[in-house]
This record gives sequence, C-alpha cells and structure tokens, in this order.
Amino acid sequence: MTVPIPDPGRLVEGIRGGDRRALARAITLAESTRADHRTVADEVLDTLAPETGGARRVGISGPPGVGKSTFIEALGTHVIDEGHRVAVLAVDPSSRRTGGSILGDKTRMGELSRRADAFIRPSPGAGQLGGVARRTREAMLLCEAFGFDVVIVETIGVGQSEVAVADMVDLFLLLVAPGGGDELQGIKRGIMELADLVVVNKADGDLASAAGRTRADYAAAVHLLRPKWHSWATEVLACSALTGSGVDDVWDAIDRFDTAVRSSRELDDARARQATAWLWSEISDALIDRFRADPTVAGLVGAVEADVASGRVSPTVAARRLLDSFGGR
Amino acid sequence: MTVPIPDPGRLVEGIRGGDRRALARAITLAESTRADHRTVADEVLDTLAPETGGARRVGISGPPGVGKSTFIEALGTHVIDEGHRVAVLAVDPSSRRTGGSILGDKTRMGELSRRADAFIRPSPGAGQLGGVARRTREAMLLCEAFGFDVVIVETIGVGQSEVAVADMVDLFLLLVAPGGGDELQGIKRGIMELADLVVVNKADGDLASAAGRTRADYAAAVHLLRPKWHSWATEVLACSALTGSGVDDVWDAIDRFDTAVRSSRELDDARARQATAWLWSEISDALIDRFRADPTVAGLVGAVEADVASGRVSPTVAARRLLDSFGGR
Repeated sequence: MTVPIPDPGRLVEGIRGGDRRALARAITLAESTRADHRTVADEVLDTLAPETGGARRVGISGPPGVGKSTFIEALGTHVIDEGHRVAVLAVDPSSRRTGGSILGDKTRMGELSRRADAFIRPSPGAGQLGGVARRTREAMLLCEAFGFDVVIVETIGVGQSEVAVADMVDLFLLLVAPGGGDELQGIKRGIMELADLVVVNKADGDLASAAGRTRADYAAAVHLLRPKWHSWATEVLACSALTGSGVDDVWDAIDRFDTAVRSSRELDDARARQATAWLWSEISDALIDRFRADPTVAGLVGAVEADVASGRVSPTVAARRLLDSFGGR
Repeated sequence: MTVPIPDPGRLVEGIRGGDRRALARAITLAESTRADHRTVADEVLDTLAPETGGARRVGISGPPGVGKSTFIEALGTHVIDEGHRVAVLAVDPSSRRTGGSILGDKTRMGELSRRADAFIRPSPGAGQLGGVARRTREAMLLCEAFGFDVVIVETIGVGQSEVAVADMVDLFLLLVAPGGGDELQGIKRGIMELADLVVVNKADGDLASAAGRTRADYAAAVHLLRPKWHSWATEVLACSALTGSGVDDVWDAIDRFDTAVRSSRELDDARARQATAWLWSEISDALIDRFRADPTVAGLVGAVEADVASGRVSPTVAARRLLDSFGGR
C-alpha cells in the first residue's frame, strides 16, 4: 500500500513531542532513495539540526560469536536503569532489509526492545557502505533530536563498516571473546586501533580466567599504540553480558571517557572533524556518481579499468583520459 | 636557467638504455606541475607502462630515531651485494624540496649512494599527500622500467604517509626500536596493522636483550591481528643496522614473502587492486578540485563548512546544497 508523504512540519512536531511513530517515519524517509522522500527528510533534518548532538555516541563492534547482541542488551538495560534513554542503530551493508529483519532485531534484543526508553532500529538495508553509514548517521541525528541521550551504533557483517561507524561515534568499543591468539585472529586488521575501549565478554564460569589473560593480552597490545585522545587512554575491561557482572564498569568507563573528552574540548573538535569529513565524502561520492553516469565515461571506464588493473596503462594516464572525456563536454 | 623540455621518445630510449640522467629527468617532469611537463611525463609513462612491475616494492616506515636511514643503507647495500639493483624513494609531504635536501638524502646514505646499482631520490617536495604519493608512484614505475628490481619507498614526516606508501608497495616493513611500551607509543595508530614485516633495529650492545623482549612483544601483538595475506603471516625480526647482523635475515624474509605472494597469485590481485584504487583516487581528487574551483561553490563553501562543523546544518543537507549550486550550472 502507498502511504501519503507526511508534512515535514508535522514530523518535526511529532519528533519534538515524543511521537515514536514520527521518529520511525522520518528515519524511513531519510533511508528512502526517492527524491520526494529525501526532500522531506532533508527539511526535517535541517530544522532539527540545532537540536542534535546531545547523545553519547557509542560504536560497538566485535567478531562473530562474541555475544554482541547479548552485550548490547545488557548494557542498554543497565543504562536505562541509570535513567538514560537508549537508541540502538546498526550498520550492515549486507543486510537484506525486511520486516522480518526488524522483528529479528527486536527478538534478538527482546528485553531491551520492550523498554519504553529504548529504540531499536536495524540497518537501513543493503547497499554501498557509504550510503548505509550516511543513512545511519541521519537516523542517529533524528534519535538525538527525539531525546535519546545514548545512541549505540552496532556494526554487523563484514567489510569496513567498523571504520565508518568509528567515524560517526564518540567512543568505539571493541568486544572480544576470551581465548588465545587463534580465536583472536577473527578481529579484522585496523579494528583494534580504532578502539577507545576493549571489553572481553564471557568473563564467567569456565572462561573467567581465560578472560583475565585475554584482557592482559589486549592491555599489552593497546599499550603499543599511540593514544587516539590526549585526555583518554584506551582501557581494557572484562565483563559477562550473561550474568551482568562488570557491565556497570563498562558504562562507568564510557561515562569517564565522556567527561574527559568533553572537558578537554577534544569531543567538540572530533565531532566537527567528523561532520566536515562526512560533508566532503558525500560530495565526493556524488561527484563520482555523476562522473560514472556520464555516457562517454561509462563507455570507456570498463576497458580503462582493465588496462590499469593489468598494468598496461598507468593509473595517472588513465585518470587523465577519463577526466578529459568527461570535462570536455 | 630554463632547460628545453626533452622529447618523450628520447627519454624512453634513455631510460631503456640505462641513462640515469634520462631517468632523473623523466621523474622531474612527472613531479612537475606544469602542463607541458606533465604531457611529456604521461607519454613516457604510457610507453613504458608494459615494462613496469618487475621490482619488489618494499615500503619502510618507523618512528623518528629508530635509525631508518642507517637501516635502509645497510639493507640496500646487502641487497646490491646479492646482485640486485636498488632504488630508494621517499614520501614526505612536509619536505621543502631543495638541492640541499637531495644532497641531504645522498649524504644521509653515503655508502649506498656511491653504489653504481643504487638510485636515491628524495620526496617530490611538499604538497598534499595524495599528490606527493602519486608522483612517488610514478617515480617507482619509471625506476622499474629502468631496470631496478628492488624499489624501497621510505615514509618521512608525519601524517598518513604510511597508509599511502602501504597502498603502493607489496611489502610494508615497520622498523621499531627496542624499549618498553612508553617508547613504543611513538608508533602511530594503524601503522602496526599495515606491517607485513616488523623489524626491531638496534639489536646490538646494551640493547640486544631489550630488542629480544621488544620482538616478543610485537610478535604477541601481531598475533592478535588477522593476517593481511593468506600466503604470508606477518613476521617479527630483530637486527642491527649498525653491525649488519640480522640484515640478511630481513632480506631473506622479504624474499620468502615475495615467493609466497607470487605463487599464491595474491600479489597480482593486490597490485591490480592498488592500481584501480589509485585510478579512482586520482579521478576523485580531480573532481573535488574542479568542484572547489567553481566560483559559486567557492563562494559558499566557507560558510557551509562552518555550519556543518558547528552542527547547525546536517552534512547531508549541506552537501546537497553545494552540489545543487554546482550541478545547476
């Protein structure tokens, strides 16, 4: 069925007034590829922009099987019990978005999804990482305008989604499982370097002592890296999402991080850098799209890419040829 | 004084014929910002493209004070003694290119620079990292066409030059110094993750035992990372560029790496990916330059960036505004 496109002013009122349907609707419009939907979403985002930025933005990533959903549910419910309002978003360029997957997300975090102060939203469907991340960022801003003061952005699936998420949050939390190097190799290169906080999950039962050793391993590895912030050094904690033990310490660390980077003004600088980088990546993506859509370029690009990949033509020369064919018209 | 621009055919002949002046001249033209120079350089690169790709491309990076120059000199002379021809290039976006700095580079590697089978070229001067890296890549291709079968690309200065160099070489070597975590924090985030080979230098005299411990630390940290190649797991070695002990092991590792990634065909794939990424980054940079050069855009961009950085306007909305002002004309 086709639903009439709501009036932007109405959506803004609804979001300000705490109408969750209005929030969900605005996010759906922001995720849409339809121009008329985008126009409404842009107007809503534009109006609400000054009311965004109030949340602690926490990115959470970890290899499969580490218990990410259980951890987010345990952390989210703890944070709500502390009096906060929590939105959980996801970035998954591989997701086939369906009603089922939304249901999947809800059931996956059953207790959290039943909380009045929680809002769980799956990834804005499959697509290029840039686009998926962008729409998740817009959902984050809408959630902030709505009044959620903690936004958790979860990475799902493979690829570079961790970097995209780290670029949109304040604190990047890497969740790992106890175990020796072999299991730990499930962590993608570069991810550990993004982490402001490393949490060893499953620190319970038989794995409790292994979790302690794993925590020490990561503490040593993290120590080899230059800190990302002047006012915060990456910490390594252990917890059990299952029993809930140590989850309060994780939130306490997120809290201390927030205080540290706000008082040092590093957070404002980081967010300004993130937003400016986001602006230019959008412009760059759009310019490349226009370039690829040019008929002359489209006709040449396949052969040129093949020549470059095979080393028959230097990338610089190939780039100039394509640019000339584009710029000349 | 102004020198007439050489004929591209002559330069190609000269490079094929082993005329080092022709090589140096071609690199200078490739580094030039003058259109007429670029045209000649492009023709030379285009003609020689099929004759490139024959070298082992080794990137070398490390924090200040690690003894990079001494190490490259020790490795380079060892490799020449093994019967190879070695070109040493550098990427340094902060370099103030002068005759002095060339002299500086030569004196910095005095013994190596006196070898007939060595070619040392400093960074193509200051500028944006993308441009500097691009010109170094072209110098690398020209050196390959000339017949150098080992090209060492050194990172100098700060910034993300390590990533740019890792994107143009086969093997990325991270040189570190013995010492505890505190000293090791000089290593930029992300760099360790790029390393296919970590070498602890200064494993001599009083530092010998510390170097052994440092090597073990890095071996443990590297073990936490998923390997970059299927056919090669990052190794950690120790050596002394001063006494030369262990330098042969480093070359042996580079050799084994080369055999492994060639026989697994991973090298061809990696180089094809690098070249294609290089093509699109050049196109993207050029499109952004054209965009910024547009008078309407230039008039708006300052205020728009400020609004975005301050959070008053959403990056998506701001991007669309700038793009409309550009695309509309």
